[in-house]
Amino acid sequence: MNSFYVIGVDLGGTKIYTALAADDGRVLSEIKLPTEAGRGLQGVIDRIVHSVEQVRENVAVPPQKVLALALGAPGPLDTAGGVIHFAPNLRWNNVPIRQILEERLSLPVLLDNDANLAALGEHVFGAGRGCGNMVYITVSTGVGGGLILDGKLYRGSSDGAGEIGHMTVLPDGPVCSCGNRGCLEAMASGTAIARAAAELVASGGGRKILAAAGGDPGRINAAAVAAAAAGGDPEAAAIIDRAAGYLGIGVASILNLLNPAMVVLGGGVMEIGEPVWKGVRREVQARALQAARSRARLVPAELGGRAGVMGAIALALQEIADGNCLPPAAAEHRNGR
Amino acid sequence: MNSFYVIGVDLGGTKIYTALAADDGRVLSEIKLPTEAGRGLQGVIDRIVHSVEQVRENVAVPPQKVLALALGAPGPLDTAGGVIHFAPNLRWNNVPIRQILEERLSLPVLLDNDANLAALGEHVFGAGRGCGNMVYITVSTGVGGGLILDGKLYRGSSDGAGEIGHMTVLPDGPVCSCGNRGCLEAMASGTAIARAAAELVASGGGRKILAAAGGDPGRINAAAVAAAAAGGDPEAAAIIDRAAGYLGIGVASILNLLNPAMVVLGGGVMEIGEPVWKGVRREVQARALQAARSRARLVPAELGGRAGVMGAIALALQEIADGNCLPPAAAEHRNGR
Repeated sequence: MNSFYVIGVDLGGTKIYTALAADDGRVLSEIKLPTEAGRGLQGVIDRIVHSVEQVRENVAVPPQKVLALALGAPGPLDTAGGVIHFAPNLRWNNVPIRQILEERLSLPVLLDNDANLAALGEHVFGAGRGCGNMVYITVSTGVGGGLILDGKLYRGSSDGAGEIGHMTVLPDGPVCSCGNRGCLEAMASGTAIARAAAELVASGGGRKILAAAGGDPGRINAAAVAAAAAGGDPEAAAIIDRAAGYLGIGVASILNLLNPAMVVLGGGVMEIGEPVWKGVRREVQARALQAARSRARLVPAELGGRAGVMGAIALALQEIADGNCLPPAAAEHRNGR
Repeated sequence: MNSFYVIGVDLGGTKIYTALAADDGRVLSEIKLPTEAGRGLQGVIDRIVHSVEQVRENVAVPPQKVLALALGAPGPLDTAGGVIHFAPNLRWNNVPIRQILEERLSLPVLLDNDANLAALGEHVFGAGRGCGNMVYITVSTGVGGGLILDGKLYRGSSDGAGEIGHMTVLPDGPVCSCGNRGCLEAMASGTAIARAAAELVASGGGRKILAAAGGDPGRINAAAVAAAAAGGDPEAAAIIDRAAGYLGIGVASILNLLNPAMVVLGGGVMEIGEPVWKGVRREVQARALQAARSRARLVPAELGGRAGVMGAIALALQEIADGNCLPPAAAEHRNGR
């Protein structure tokens, strides 16, 4: 018999992933729902509440035995205040999500950045178990990450740490979604790979890539480039190798700055496999100082799409262990409401 | 009357800077000696021992009231083992400096990286007082630094963190002293500024810079470039602005990765003043995410050449407060000797 339970929620632009875990982190019940952000704030909140009720009912856990819920959400956000400042995918601005959910669920709610929680998930339950200094990088549509330093999640001074995707790796490179030039995300994300391929096709090259996209230039994506490369197309291989090399440049800079014992790499682009790892290792070998390089293992993420929700569970368990999860009534007092 | 005292030593390739401080960090006595590394290991050890005896005698402190000595040294080194692995300026390889000094001085000895201690010095006694997340960068012959994260010195997994000078800021840039290309140190250090100016002169330009170097191409250094720029020379100003811009690119990447509340910039190149700050601010404005940028203050270092020795004093005081300074007899037991 478990003495208590926690709930983790990973709130993304496309889906809400909710899991209920025992006090040892074992997941007993989980559910994924589409976010349908277009229905508005109230619709998304209703879905989160519904998913929480569902995971509790699935295993018949009495509500009072669930001691905390942790929510991972896209940022920027304020973990201490429990407010999501800005989430473009959800079209949210300054949503006091903690207060809203605590009132609806009568449960202490913790808020954190989704990439930070994915890092924590890999640290507690995945590839980074037992590793005190670990950098987590996810390379998919964008490039994100989180830092575990001296055994703890490092959030920075305003919950903004870990924006690995916006380190500059090529000062005069292409414009990034953030408006800057040559960010790691603009050079190595799936979006960057697709853009490079689309430009090649537009200039008359990339026939194998176009074929892999079913002949439709509008359907060129990183998966099509990877498929063409796997089929032996040198143009596709060069695009992937270049992106992987910039990822390696970013990793090397992080090794020199932070001297971690492990870099955990996940996300869809890493699933392309050896062609990406090869490019990463080449640049790390060339650019990381020997002391930093010899210490750091580069390893694949283990939790895949579950990293965020597992990190939320880890956070809830940690905060309970640290005595930081007050019941909402006490939390109201704490917040001076 | 002070209840105890500590000694800080900053061991560099050219000088040994030693200071004795009271238990509140006030420096009561200090001495600088040339290192004269050419005399060999024994000669340098003798000088350190002599400097320690001097600072004690200057203020007539009984030896038993000095509870610890902290030594900052160039790395790579092993803080836990007390061993300097490799110090090219000193021509040292795997020197067990803690054991040697503990035997000579009958005093607990702590070892740390010189740039880490300079960061700690600015954090405890200088520009970063009270700032929990602070990045320290020193830009002189090379580019070095240290990280204060969540209120503590962050050393990484093998005492290698803070190698800010070896973050890549231009992948195809010039070769760095470390062998890689386009490191921050290769783009923004005093050495990089001097090299860019020497190349300009060699190609027939840079007449004002050459004049500022007394007409001797062999004497072109960052100070000559700064003097020419201050005199209105656009070629010199462009060299400084370019170096400063790359420094700003590095700072912006660090802001996005670490979200510090403060970046403390010191070293000879920063003393060039506004032309350098302007280039740094421009790139930070362009490249750091708004959340990270709005949080971080960029400020000049306050301790100058005293940062390292003040950091050594801070380390000794911290370790005593944490109960980590055992007398050498107990330390021998701890080390299983």
